[in-house]
Amino acid sequence: MKLATLKDGSRDGQLIVVSRDLGTAHFATGIAGRLQQALDDWNFIAPQLQDVSDALNQGRARHAFPFDPAQCMAPLPRAYQWLDGSAYLNHVELVRAAGRSDVPERFYTEPLMYQGGSDDLLGACDDILVSAEAFGIDFEAELAVITADVPMGVTPDQGLDAVRLLMLANDVSLRHLIASEVETRLGLVQGKPSTAFSPVAVTPDELGDAWQDGRVHLTLQTSWNGRKVGMCDAGPDMRFHFGELIAHAARTRRLRAGTIVGSGTVSNPGVEQNGRREWPKGYGCIAERRAMETLQDGAATTDYMKFGDRLRIEMKGRDGHTLFGVIDQKVVQYTP
Amino acid sequence: MKLATLKDGSRDGQLIVVSRDLGTAHFATGIAGRLQQALDDWNFIAPQLQDVSDALNQGRARHAFPFDPAQCMAPLPRAYQWLDGSAYLNHVELVRAAGRSDVPERFYTEPLMYQGGSDDLLGACDDILVSAEAFGIDFEAELAVITADVPMGVTPDQGLDAVRLLMLANDVSLRHLIASEVETRLGLVQGKPSTAFSPVAVTPDELGDAWQDGRVHLTLQTSWNGRKVGMCDAGPDMRFHFGELIAHAARTRRLRAGTIVGSGTVSNPGVEQNGRREWPKGYGCIAERRAMETLQDGAATTDYMKFGDRLRIEMKGRDGHTLFGVIDQKVVQYTP
Repeated sequence: MKLATLKDGSRDGQLIVVSRDLGTAHFATGIAGRLQQALDDWNFIAPQLQDVSDALNQGRARHAFPFDPAQCMAPLPRAYQWLDGSAYLNHVELVRAAGRSDVPERFYTEPLMYQGGSDDLLGACDDILVSAEAFGIDFEAELAVITADVPMGVTPDQGLDAVRLLMLANDVSLRHLIASEVETRLGLVQGKPSTAFSPVAVTPDELGDAWQDGRVHLTLQTSWNGRKVGMCDAGPDMRFHFGELIAHAARTRRLRAGTIVGSGTVSNPGVEQNGRREWPKGYGCIAERRAMETLQDGAATTDYMKFGDRLRIEMKGRDGHTLFGVIDQKVVQYTP
Repeated sequence: MKLATLKDGSRDGQLIVVSRDLGTAHFATGIAGRLQQALDDWNFIAPQLQDVSDALNQGRARHAFPFDPAQCMAPLPRAYQWLDGSAYLNHVELVRAAGRSDVPERFYTEPLMYQGGSDDLLGACDDILVSAEAFGIDFEAELAVITADVPMGVTPDQGLDAVRLLMLANDVSLRHLIASEVETRLGLVQGKPSTAFSPVAVTPDELGDAWQDGRVHLTLQTSWNGRKVGMCDAGPDMRFHFGELIAHAARTRRLRAGTIVGSGTVSNPGVEQNGRREWPKGYGCIAERRAMETLQDGAATTDYMKFGDRLRIEMKGRDGHTLFGVIDQKVVQYTP
């Protein structure tokens, strides 16, 4: 099933069930008002939501209404936890190479992860508010899962069993702030403003065979100002699958239901072509593009995003239909 | 007023109002069931809670019951955000000196801060569950505030106005995991298990004159296995006050109501005594103690906490009475 949260003026919005084709929706009234409620008591509530979903998909829901992604908050508008991994090693290699720093050996055996802010997550069509272009405004096209309760010390397999829902994410990054913030060695606060999520969150069964080994074997499409910049394969190059990311996060503490875990920027390695390294699948963030330019020509020429820029992220199923709906955001100047 | 959250088997517990002397309590039923609800709508709900508080303190509350800190969850058992500063520079200087790394100049002008996990915060008397002593189990005695909604780009003064409640915190740290985790430059995940908070959260007026310039001018007392190890002055040595910490966190994003911001380990600089550097006020975490030993004698001799160890943190008002109640935790081995 597919779930979304409708803007209603409240902090947590209103939970709705959305049809598979994202054409229609139905309130979950009487079952659960908010997605967090459903996650808190999933085994009891999910089957009831599934009934609504079945009715919607069969065209027999009595109070269905047209689904409008622009009216969506993030599926979880405020979450108790947002942990973002960096599971595509090519992203790490590129960004590090451009910064002239090596990739430590351990990054190949242990997931990289940062703790993000989760109190104010953005809807798929919400503006990206930034006060200065000089911060180096970048996008990051990612996948993310929402978990059940996860006990401390789980195995990757057990971690995988805790995956309840999947989403797309745009993990907005302020590169020039990050460059200085990582020097504190305490992680990212100012460099990571609010993250945006796809209109709907879907249960793993909606992905069919494409959900395998804790990875989504589909193409993540990223467009920047209408130009397709990334057609990245989210499958095999994900070094650590979602169960491994969850197990990493739960090594020294339990994770509570509603924890969001991200994949990091989806990224595929380059290939040698005519004596030159090329990345035919494009990029999932501008930092990667700039790294490619630096490696190819010695200098980055692509600038970060400007006010007014648009960013679009989407993933289609094997049937060619959109799975999560479209993240479609505009960068807008914030003035206090 | 003083607020607490009683264990009732639910994820968020039950909001109660506690008398100034922590002797009695009263359910906030009919006003707000959970502290987050009160924070979401503070201007409407706080005056009603204040009425209950007044009745309690005047001994005219009709359904008062004895207050038991052992029955408390964290005042916010799961929060949408937990950001911990490192506002006492002496802590940073000590820990860095022991690790033979310099304190960058910027640390004196810009607050250090990390994003912590907030999905599973511990009550004041909850066990500290750790799977291995080899992780280097440490405590950190801190102050923390809970904020109202904070717009992006606020000034420190505006940040200070957003302080709704104050608490004590034990920011448990796994030193040997942190040592390796900071090398990722993405911050702390495994090195920071669940943080514990004092039984009650109090409004700033409960501190009287001791709450000044965004700082708490009182002594934070820390005992480890019954031995007083820290009598640290939380006031003047706090380089960045809570308004400055909040403004730092809100530079590139707004903070939503219920955000918890910590001070970092409360720590006072050493003094030269008989030709030797001494820290007469003691320490707020073992890492500091080990740094002091290293600076004095070339090697750390104090070990980190063992299973069965107890840790106690308290702060008394100028009248000698406990302000927040006592954090009193035991380290217990976790087995999955």
